[in-house]
Amino acid sequence: MPADALSATLFALADPTRRGLLARLATGDATVTELAEPYEMSLAAVSKHLKVLEAAGLVSRGRQAQWRPCHLEGAPLQAVSEWLDDYRRFWDRNLDSLADYLKAIQQQDRGGQV
Amino acid sequence: MPADALSATLFALADPTRRGLLARLATGDATVTELAEPYEMSLAAVSKHLKVLEAAGLVSRGRQAQWRPCHLEGAPLQAVSEWLDDYRRFWDRNLDSLADYLKAIQQQDRGGQV
Repeated sequence: MPADALSATLFALADPTRRGLLARLATGDATVTELAEPYEMSLAAVSKHLKVLEAAGLVSRGRQAQWRPCHLEGAPLQAVSEWLDDYRRFWDRNLDSLADYLKAIQQQDRGGQV
Repeated sequence: MPADALSATLFALADPTRRGLLARLATGDATVTELAEPYEMSLAAVSKHLKVLEAAGLVSRGRQAQWRPCHLEGAPLQAVSEWLDDYRRFWDRNLDSLADYLKAIQQQDRGGQV
């Protein structure tokens, strides 16, 4: 398990089953049994995946003794989104166009000053 | 190495050194030697991290025989961003407020129809 929080989150997300569990939790809280239903997996295997998600803070567990429903926590995903923001210009063509536009009007301004 | 592309990307990002290499490449292409400079790491260790980034498509290598500069590729990061979009409402309070507002005006509309 990675030491820093962002690495732990990214590591937890780097598995299609764990992302599937989050997708299910995005529709509402669920017990481990409910979460395991769509998978051909033992409860133990699902619990193991949930533990990785919990360790990264992506899932919290309720306190109702027997059920302890799982709940999706958005904060670690926000941290990933904020990390990504610095890289948005590498794929967002609208941002590229905006940069080109700003460059163009800067050059126009300089032209006007001559 | 995870089988699906999104998992491979998230796994590659789940390491602070690899994210550091991407941050350096975000400022411009660089050779392995240049990338290794800030780290107390062998060139071999840096190369190993780069191979993980390359396997995920996050880094491509130039064709100049000796130098083969590394280049940041944005597309896999865009895929992460698009995956995150489905979860934005779990942390974006503005979206929450918008949802509340839409609910409120829907209820007002219903009230008006009675």
